[in-house]
Amino acid sequence: MIILGIDPGYATIGYGVIEKNGSNIRAVDYGTIQTPKDESIPVRLAMLDEALTKIIRKFKPDAVSVEELFFNTNITTGIKVAQARGVILVCAIKECGRLYEYTPLQIKQALTGNGRADKKQMQYMVKTFLNLRVEPRPDDAADALAAAICHAGMPEYSARILN
Amino acid sequence: MIILGIDPGYATIGYGVIEKNGSNIRAVDYGTIQTPKDESIPVRLAMLDEALTKIIRKFKPDAVSVEELFFNTNITTGIKVAQARGVILVCAIKECGRLYEYTPLQIKQALTGNGRADKKQMQYMVKTFLNLRVEPRPDDAADALAAAICHAGMPEYSARILN
Repeated sequence: MIILGIDPGYATIGYGVIEKNGSNIRAVDYGTIQTPKDESIPVRLAMLDEALTKIIRKFKPDAVSVEELFFNTNITTGIKVAQARGVILVCAIKECGRLYEYTPLQIKQALTGNGRADKKQMQYMVKTFLNLRVEPRPDDAADALAAAICHAGMPEYSARILN
Repeated sequence: MIILGIDPGYATIGYGVIEKNGSNIRAVDYGTIQTPKDESIPVRLAMLDEALTKIIRKFKPDAVSVEELFFNTNITTGIKVAQARGVILVCAIKECGRLYEYTPLQIKQALTGNGRADKKQMQYMVKTFLNLRVEPRPDDAADALAAAICHAGMPEYSARILN
């Protein structure tokens, strides 16, 4: 089973593709989609849509796992990220069809057993789970892999299916 | 020139199509897109995308005018509306290509000369500008028509083009 994890954003969007075989998981690919700062938000969102469509068509995931938004105090950034997340959700539904979402707490819990794990612990566990030589960079890609790993370890009945 | 105004939302999305001929404007069509409450948000967003694509293909607007988000205190609703707005922006870019946004204040100012006009005044002015027999219902459709009228009256140089 191929799982695509996504860390939502509008400037940098992390993605991570893993393959699950029984209880084994391995990294297939990971990285980021970047949208240019000097473009307007709608154009950047359209670029995100195009780039994500290509990734889904290339790796043909059986499931897409998207982190839920955790809102900090910056409402302006929050609106932009939420707009981007809407684009990501529709793209995943159209191109894949199996979409799951997990809160940051669920993802941290799944990888470290601790819902309050810090970035360093998370990166260490992503590296360990996927048998990588180095911790995956940048953070957005590591977060996306973490979302994919979280879904891989989730019993079907406890996953919050969105469609 | 055909202008499509959109009032963003995830449950009810208002749309209003007007035609501008010199200084004359008339209503071509208006109404709402509704998404079913018992579906998940991603599915509702995909339905919105599909319905809006159909509307744009049907009326072939020369410009799309979308109201900017005004954030009230309900952050959960705010995230959902922002996610829907992202979908609307990408749909408008892909299907039309000419996208403009106006703040609620700009739209009120353009229609009534008063940035703090209430709903009743706004509906009255939409009816007057478009020579309608009755005020357009529901509110979402009237708001969408107002966004379209605002763009129709905007000198090109002062419009905030998004792409």
